[in-house]
Amino acid sequence: MVERLSAEARKSALKGLSGWAETPGREAIARIFVFKDFNEAFGFMSRAALVAEKNDHHPEWRNVYKTVEVVLATHDASGVTARDIELAKAMNAIASQFGVT
Amino acid sequence: MVERLSAEARKSALKGLSGWAETPGREAIARIFVFKDFNEAFGFMSRAALVAEKNDHHPEWRNVYKTVEVVLATHDASGVTARDIELAKAMNAIASQFGVT
Repeated sequence: MVERLSAEARKSALKGLSGWAETPGREAIARIFVFKDFNEAFGFMSRAALVAEKNDHHPEWRNVYKTVEVVLATHDASGVTARDIELAKAMNAIASQFGVT
Repeated sequence: MVERLSAEARKSALKGLSGWAETPGREAIARIFVFKDFNEAFGFMSRAALVAEKNDHHPEWRNVYKTVEVVLATHDASGVTARDIELAKAMNAIASQFGVT
């Protein structure tokens, strides 16, 4: 099982993750991505879904037209782990290809 | 512009829509779909996204692993319209192909 990050390790990892922040009242990290339109928002989700499925680590996310709100946490560890940081990084890389940084 | 349904017309349309209900505190309709796994949940979302984009009428939706929560309303009409009922029907038809009825 992958280990839950300490508050310090979480903060340190977030420093390198553009747009991500801690979720108030919950041990999780979150980012809101805003794209040009639904086509790009769902394009982002489709690519991220493939990464999530491949790594067997899935996001909680909400889509309203061009906006995608993502929350990442590792259920088994009751907190944020390296797997969340990895998925957040992959999502940032995908979003940047749509010009969202 | 497509016309907002009256409370009566909304209730009547919902009778034919398995799983859908009014959203408390908001003029919208909602359904929670529960699939077998993420593959099927995102497969459902992908097919529904194509329908939404084709009709230029998009859902608000949230996905957590195998669950997809959908809320439909027509922003321009500040309520539920025939376009929401149509999308709800299309979503039910797609979900039923995954065995979710």
